[in-house]
Parts: sequence; C-alpha cells; structure tokens
Amino acid sequence: MKINIPESSKKRIVIVGGGFGGLKLALKLARRKEYQVVLLDKNNYHQFQPLFYQVAMAGLEPSSISFPLRKAFRKNKDVYIRVTEVKAVHPDRKQLETSLGICNYDHLVLAIGADTNFFGNEKIARLAIPMKSVSEALFLRNRILSDFEKALSITDFEERQGLMDIVVVGGGPTGVEVSGALAEMKRYVFPKDYPELNTDEIDIYLVQGGPQLLQGMSEESSRKSLEFLTELDVKVRLNTIVTDFDGEYVHMNDGETIRARKVIWAAGVTGARIKGLPDGALTRGNRIRVNRFSQVAGLEDVYAVGDIAYMEEEAYPQGHPQVAQVAMQQAAQLAKNFSNLHREKELLPFSYKDLGSMATIGRNRAVVDLPRWKFQGAFAWLVWLFVHLFQILGVKNKVFIFLNWVWNYVTYDQSLRLIIRPRVPKSGDVEVEP
Amino acid sequence: MKINIPESSKKRIVIVGGGFGGLKLALKLARRKEYQVVLLDKNNYHQFQPLFYQVAMAGLEPSSISFPLRKAFRKNKDVYIRVTEVKAVHPDRKQLETSLGICNYDHLVLAIGADTNFFGNEKIARLAIPMKSVSEALFLRNRILSDFEKALSITDFEERQGLMDIVVVGGGPTGVEVSGALAEMKRYVFPKDYPELNTDEIDIYLVQGGPQLLQGMSEESSRKSLEFLTELDVKVRLNTIVTDFDGEYVHMNDGETIRARKVIWAAGVTGARIKGLPDGALTRGNRIRVNRFSQVAGLEDVYAVGDIAYMEEEAYPQGHPQVAQVAMQQAAQLAKNFSNLHREKELLPFSYKDLGSMATIGRNRAVVDLPRWKFQGAFAWLVWLFVHLFQILGVKNKVFIFLNWVWNYVTYDQSLRLIIRPRVPKSGDVEVEP
Repeated sequence: MKINIPESSKKRIVIVGGGFGGLKLALKLARRKEYQVVLLDKNNYHQFQPLFYQVAMAGLEPSSISFPLRKAFRKNKDVYIRVTEVKAVHPDRKQLETSLGICNYDHLVLAIGADTNFFGNEKIARLAIPMKSVSEALFLRNRILSDFEKALSITDFEERQGLMDIVVVGGGPTGVEVSGALAEMKRYVFPKDYPELNTDEIDIYLVQGGPQLLQGMSEESSRKSLEFLTELDVKVRLNTIVTDFDGEYVHMNDGETIRARKVIWAAGVTGARIKGLPDGALTRGNRIRVNRFSQVAGLEDVYAVGDIAYMEEEAYPQGHPQVAQVAMQQAAQLAKNFSNLHREKELLPFSYKDLGSMATIGRNRAVVDLPRWKFQGAFAWLVWLFVHLFQILGVKNKVFIFLNWVWNYVTYDQSLRLIIRPRVPKSGDVEVEP
Repeated sequence: MKINIPESSKKRIVIVGGGFGGLKLALKLARRKEYQVVLLDKNNYHQFQPLFYQVAMAGLEPSSISFPLRKAFRKNKDVYIRVTEVKAVHPDRKQLETSLGICNYDHLVLAIGADTNFFGNEKIARLAIPMKSVSEALFLRNRILSDFEKALSITDFEERQGLMDIVVVGGGPTGVEVSGALAEMKRYVFPKDYPELNTDEIDIYLVQGGPQLLQGMSEESSRKSLEFLTELDVKVRLNTIVTDFDGEYVHMNDGETIRARKVIWAAGVTGARIKGLPDGALTRGNRIRVNRFSQVAGLEDVYAVGDIAYMEEEAYPQGHPQVAQVAMQQAAQLAKNFSNLHREKELLPFSYKDLGSMATIGRNRAVVDLPRWKFQGAFAWLVWLFVHLFQILGVKNKVFIFLNWVWNYVTYDQSLRLIIRPRVPKSGDVEVEP
C-alpha cells in the first residue's frame, strides 16, 4: 500500500520527526516553496523538551509546551503532515516503510532525535521513569501524586518513605532541574496538601556518575548548581552509579541502597533506531554519521540533523552536543542547501555557533553560560525564563506559560495536581481506544 | 483492614463523592468545625461538569475545569480526603467498605451522582462514547482527532465519511452543546487543519427521542435551540431513537441508517450504583428515595443529595431535576441541618428554589430561562459565559478559562488539538502504571 499523498511536479523532501530540527527545516522549506514537503511524526504535535520537567512537576499543562503540527503549516499548500510510525528506510529504492504505507522520497531527512539510554539494563528500562516526551512527563506527574495518595494508607514508616522518596539519576540539565523542582514541591506544596504526612521525611536524591553536575557547562555552573541543590536539601551523590533497581530498592555501586519506588532516569541518551541503514552509518551513541552537509555517509539523498546526527568539525572533533541549538542551526543550514541545490548553486558546510547554555535549579536559582559571560542566581533565573518563553512556539503558549509562571511564583503553588487519564470507564473496551 | 484516618472526639460525617453536592457539603461542614469530615472520591479532583463538552472540543484543558480536592481543604484540619472506590455500605454496622479498607461513620452522605444511561443496550454501552467525566471528555477529544488523521489515508468516500461524521444522541443541554460545538469546529477549525479533506462533507447528527430539544426548558428555548442548530447545519432528528450501533453503522427506529464510527451518548442518566442499600431505598431512575431532610428512607444516619437523591416536594411531585443547582442547594440545607443536629435544634425541610437554566449552542447563540425572563441569542450567550465563569472553582481556573474563551472567540480557533496520553512508551509495562 502506498501512503495517500498526491504526486507533485516538485521534488519531494520527506522529513522524519517534528522536533526542533525537523520542524525548523519543514517551516523553512515550506516558506521557500521549492519542494513538496512531507513531515512524518508519531504525534500530531511538536514538543518543547526543555520544559518537560515542569509538566511532570504539575507546573505547566502538556498543551502549553506542545504545538499542533497542523497549526504550524496552516498557510502552506504542498506540506503534508502524517501521524505515523516509520518502520524502515529503503535507500536503494528511495522509499520509507510507514504504518500508513510506502512513502517515496527524492530527499530524505532523518530528524528522529534520541531516546533514553538505559545502558542495556533491561530491569531499569522496565521500572524507571524516563522523561523524553510530554506523555512520559504526564505519567510521572500522575505517578508522584498517586504514590502520595497511597502513602496516606501506609502505617509502616519504611514502606511509606519508599513511596515518597525519589531518586533522580543523571546530573545533566534534566536531572538537575527535576530534582530542584521536586525539592521545591517538598518545601512549598506537599506540606499544605498532605498535612497528615510528615513531608520533612521526604528525601530527594540526585545520583550522578561523573565528578560534577552539568558536565557540558562551565566550572562555575557545575559548582553553583551543586550549591543550590544542597541549599534545597537535595542529597547529591557524585561519582556514583545506579547498578540495580527492582521497583522497591535502588542499589548503587558504592554499596548504598535506597528504598524508593520511583527512579527518574535522565542518565543519558542514545540515538533513536531506524531500520534499513547500512551498518557503517551508525557510530558512537548510536548516532548517524553525516558530513558537513548533513549527508549520511555512504547514502545518496539521505540526510540527518539534530541529536541523531554525528557530525565532526574542527571545533567539535567528537561531534556536537545533543542540544536543541545544534538541531535548529543544522536544520536552517540544510534548508539553505536544499534551496541552493534547487537553484543549482554550491552547497555550504555547516559550522556550529554556540550561543551558550543554561539550567534552572529553582526559584531565583539558575546558571547561565554565555560565550563571554557566566553568571548564576536570580538574574540568571530571569534570563532562563525569558529565553525559554521566547523560544516556545505560539503566542498563546507564551501567554499561558508566562501566566502560569507568574501564578506559581506568587502563590508558591503548582496548581495542576490532577490525576487525569483519558478513558471510557463504562466500557473498558480496548477496541475503541484511539 | 481499617482505613487509616485518626479517631476524633467529634462525630464523623463521611461524604461519598466530590461533585457539586458532596464538595459543597464538605466545605460548609469544614467551616463550622462541628464534625470530623471524611470525603471519599475516585478522583483527586472536583470536576465542573457543565464544561466537559468544551474539553472534548479542544477548547479548554481538563485542568481548567478540575480542581484538586486537597487544595480546597488546605486550611481545614479534621477534613480527611481519600482517593478510593467505595465498594459497599453496611448501614447495620455503620460502615463503608472501600478499596482502602473499612471506614466507620456516624453519619453517611451519599453524593455519588448519576452515570450514563444506556437503557440496557450493552453493545451501545461498549461502543458509544459517554461524557460524564473529564477523562471521558478527553478520550472523545483524542478520538475525534485520531479519526481525522486516519481519514487522510482512506480513499473510499463512504468509509472516510464514516470516520468524520458524528452522531450525537440526546437533545438535552449536553447533546445540544456538543453538537453545536462540533458544527463550529466543522466550519472554522477543520477546514484550516485538514485542507486535504473536504470538510463540507462532514455531517453532524443530533438524535432526540422526544418531540423537542431541551425538554426541561421553555418552549421558546426549545424552538430557538433547534433554529440555532439548523443554522449551524446540524442535522436534527426529533422523535427518533437510536436502536443499534455496531461501531460502524448507527441504526434508528425510523429505519434510517447512518454510517458513523463515533456515537456520542448523552441520552440520559441513571443513578450510580452502590451495594448494600435495602431494595426499598431505590426508586425511578435508580435514584435513592429520601425525605425532605435528605434522609434515606428506612435507614438511620444515611443521607443522599444531588442527582442520586429522589426527593418529592409539592412543586416537584416527580422529584427534582438532576442538575447542579439542586445538588448544591440540598448540600447547603443538609449542612445547616447537621449543624442544627449538633446544637440539638430542629431540622428544617428542603425546598428547591429554581434559579433558571441555560444552554449554549455556539458563538453568540445561547438560550436562557430565568424564572421571570426568557431570552436567546448573543446576550444570552454572554450571560451563559459569565454565570459559568462565576461558578467555576478557583481564581486561577476562572482566569485561564476566561483567557481561553477570549482567545478562541477572537481567533475562531480551538487551539488544544493535541492527542496526548500519559505513558511510559519505553517499558510498556502495565505494572508501573499508577
């Protein structure tokens, strides 16, 4: 079966993935109108990954950090969006195999991003909670709230602690942000919601394999984020690795065991897998090796951008960091090159321009590394807020996020503490589940 | 096992259900501090039922019309909230059986509301979509959006229509409001999102068993709502009953068959069931018979308020309408009577004061029946908006709903068109599902 997309006189570029890279590329190509654009994604929305943790912490609604893909392309003819799963690439036939049928391409761009890396530990993969999608963030929110409700019925101290304590694994931005946010909920929200529980007893652990937090950032940021987290009473374990988790106890390589039923896994990523690429195309971290024009090594008319792409340049001999900035810059460059290709002009190689990085730990506590200036604290926190607000797609999302932040800041409250799941409880018939 | 709630020197009132009646009663009792209050609900939030249809139509977020129960009682000691399912009442032992254990009571108030009535048709119960909870509304939203995505791949005309056409059953406020909202999405939203589909071909049907819409309201409102819906191109079938639905075809008693995969069922309600009540306690519509003091016939210290209660008074010889106003007024009266009981004063009988009713059909189209004044159209629509805004719990919810409404009104857009479900896709392990 062929996917139901009309043939066009223009050449067809198929983009797999509507993340930062894929969406940016599709938007730029749509504006230029030189190609037919097909955008494939598992979801009907683009997700703003840097704020997943705020969804998990009941501070923002999933809808505020998601943007319907169709809405982004409303004014564009010759852009076709399909919600589908890509099963395999067939570079020899210039085809994709999707759950909606075979999709031909003239040019294929893989922007499939990265998945959570459980480092081969299947037990942890089964029981720990990742945070690489808005759905997972929502799952975590429901889980935290449900466990507190359960804790009310448990009289055994150790067992109750196990329900309330949380172990966060991974000291990158996600791990730091989520453990900071949990610590603030422990301080400001839980005592008011659960006066029956002694919320002082809740322990938040952050376990980091390396010797410092935020390893991609500056020395000052690493040091300051540790200081901020310690002030917030997060128990940080550096140089420590979680070796096992059975759903009840977390074991570490230094012999320590923590009783905690929730392990939030933010320890690393690995390239999302797609079938049909030649063995030689994959490299470290399961990334796809590309040249400076984002072309996949050894394949014609196949490109990769963003987290999934591994591109070496002089300043980045080990490849670029897997961050949104790289994805968006690569996408912009690739869009230009497609335009050059169309107009039979020369292609230009990509160079990454690092605009800086930042992470927030809590109210008035953030760290910012700009190329020429590093600063931490309340001003950094304001900068963090506005940079993220500016980057989020859609005016309405910006307005609603801003209002939520102001509200949460003023009231010391994350007000979205609702355990809501879509369902038809009367029937319970899985057949009708969309 | 006993439920984990401390004994108190005060008498314990257990309220089952945090809807309009149960919540109002709990809030009033909490303020007076004469009793220990235990509030049991399946969910950790109160739901604002009149706006479920706007959640289903992607106009509001579930969180905007839900309010965390714990937040409502933050300042109250001696109020215990438990998220649990009540399995049975044992009036002889003055106990409730819940999923968290046995719960003793001195006074028990059943505020368990009403469920969707499928009139015994199990096939319809399994395949039609009800709208009696925010979870069901969210399910419906996801279902509508998923079906449009699917329709893009279907080339057969009849089959594609089946995915897009919708049959709404029941001409009460819910049925009228949801079919009006669907008609507006057909007109303003779908053509922009799905330029590939001919959205003019979408048919919205409203099937009503009786001879007129909004049967509880005035003649003018019935007539005008039919006029409004016809203007919006909704195909209204009066005096018609859906007799069968197999997931693909909808059969009606006049011989008509419509191909539609979505049937929204708003045809009626039946009292929610609870085990352990004597046979004589139940009456028409599965409601619990109570006297003018909300006391359940034949039982001591057991009360019922709201949709589940069947109370006859002079002006309402067939019982009160099953609407929020009745539930809230009964709850307020019962709270006063509990206070009188505590202070050994006389109990006062309940009388319902009808404040009027209203329904909205679409932009600038609503009908309002006040005791002395009936009006329809744009002003009625404004009144509808402000009355609902005023009734919703929580300042933040009010602000966010207001902003959403203004936004949707100005942009002709329901912007929350996201198919989001909480999940851990990596593991797929149901064990960890909270």
